[in-house]
Amino acid sequence: MYTSPRAKLVNVSTIGNPVLDEEAVRRIVRSEIEHADAKDPGTASAALIASKGTLDWAYPPLILATTAASLGMEASIFFTFYGLNIVHKDYDRLLKVSPLGNPAMPMPVPMPNLVLGLPGMGPIATKMMQSKFRRKNVTTIRELLDLARDLDVGLIACQMTMDAFGYKADDFIQGVRFGGAAAFLAKARKAHLTLFI
Amino acid sequence: MYTSPRAKLVNVSTIGNPVLDEEAVRRIVRSEIEHADAKDPGTASAALIASKGTLDWAYPPLILATTAASLGMEASIFFTFYGLNIVHKDYDRLLKVSPLGNPAMPMPVPMPNLVLGLPGMGPIATKMMQSKFRRKNVTTIRELLDLARDLDVGLIACQMTMDAFGYKADDFIQGVRFGGAAAFLAKARKAHLTLFI
Amino acid sequence: MYTSPRAKLVNVSTIGNPVLDEEAVRRIVRSEIEHADAKDPGTASAALIASKGTLDWAYPPLILATTAASLGMEASIFFTFYGLNIVHKDYDRLLKVSPLGNPAMPMPVPMPNLVLGLPGMGPIATKMMQSKFRRKNVTTIRELLDLARDLDVGLIACQMTMDAFGYKADDFIQGVRFGGAAAFLAKARKAHLTLFI
Repeated sequence: MYTSPRAKLVNVSTIGNPVLDEEAVRRIVRSEIEHADAKDPGTASAALIASKGTLDWAYPPLILATTAASLGMEASIFFTFYGLNIVHKDYDRLLKVSPLGNPAMPMPVPMPNLVLGLPGMGPIATKMMQSKFRRKNVTTIRELLDLARDLDVGLIACQMTMDAFGYKADDFIQGVRFGGAAAFLAKARKAHLTLFI
Repeated sequence: MYTSPRAKLVNVSTIGNPVLDEEAVRRIVRSEIEHADAKDPGTASAALIASKGTLDWAYPPLILATTAASLGMEASIFFTFYGLNIVHKDYDRLLKVSPLGNPAMPMPVPMPNLVLGLPGMGPIATKMMQSKFRRKNVTTIRELLDLARDLDVGLIACQMTMDAFGYKADDFIQGVRFGGAAAFLAKARKAHLTLFI
Repeated sequence: MYTSPRAKLVNVSTIGNPVLDEEAVRRIVRSEIEHADAKDPGTASAALIASKGTLDWAYPPLILATTAASLGMEASIFFTFYGLNIVHKDYDRLLKVSPLGNPAMPMPVPMPNLVLGLPGMGPIATKMMQSKFRRKNVTTIRELLDLARDLDVGLIACQMTMDAFGYKADDFIQGVRFGGAAAFLAKARKAHLTLFI
């Protein structure tokens, strides 16, 4: 006769003296806690805030969120302040790089700030970064946004900043939802991985 | 005779067959863990670091901390580096916006960087953002600081940066406390929501 | 005759009357959970991302990570984008401060942006901050990097950015390891303290 492991346990319990003392219970509890920790809900989600609106700073939230999602985490990005640029329909035109005031930006030749401030230098810096990234096969913003939507990364535009900057729901790319900081934080407080970018 | 609910349970146990086997114990444990997770202390607090000292970047820490506090979380902000500006008595004068090197800042008309660099353009950008926010009924920094204190948001100024920049305790607004990074991190390590702004 | 500890436990149970009812089990469980929470693995590690490559922004990740490590936490820093400058062999030359576009930077006398943009003003701002920090006995970047390695802070350079910027493993200081965002996030998701700097 087939007896399932569970039935067997119960049988043993009934026959013998299955009585568990405190020590045995504590042992069971510890194994259950260990198991529960391994699937700690906090480790299963990532909540990122994207607040900057330049080409270079559009990369980190998109790369980190898609990487988290590809690791099986539930990832979402809250686009606020200048970060709204990243999910604006015109992101390709809005996301620029400014070399001014950013001495960490690698330039082909050192240029004094006054030259960088000349009209036309901003577009040159943007083009330079775009081509540097293209040569190295770094994915484009368009590809990352597509990937994010494929991986079900939550893309949430901050309602308050939209109002302050005069944007309408219609100004944003497909798949973007709209919400406030409170709704976002209510979710983010349960995530271990919370980053303000 | 009065019997406490617990005593009653024990009575029942003694009478019937209260024997719990391992399976029953594991079921109890799982329900307790689920209950404990729901009130995970990590989800109950928010620890933010405010490191930037411009008008635009003063908003995110104050908005996020007051929102977290209004959700019932214990929220605190550690003001360090340029972030000290936000709780300096002179914050109204110190918090400026610079359009230079920030191509994400929405301007009424596109202006080349050289023009933005002309003396006097910084104040114009600051005024522009202030009036844009006022027209949209976005709360002011003063209102947010008042709200933060009303909601018991912890406002902590970084002692080390204060010393490095030559500030004194007296230079800061009422309600600010002073502390080091170690004291802040000792608290922050228990919070899920930790953001560097 | 040899009896395993477990068998022994069961024997003890059989002799006395160790019968635990559900209430007693729940009490044990709660005490174990409380104990487990106190050593919540999430509170034991800090995962920081250093993304900026100027002198001022090199301080926060190094100060926070070494402080966390000195509190007994397992700390690591993922250097990505401009943050690679911090662990580049040439960090002393690469880490500069730009006063341009940063109205929060304390200057001895107010200077209009156009003057700050003149060739040569960047080095002056860098020197000014270095000497201000030296006068106040703030540790140098070199000292903080040494301290980080002494305290076993994990220093990880982002492989993808290295490739995009054309850096080689050889360009970095001793003790730096190399890895991708996925490897870093797999660790970071277990840490409560996660900061993007």
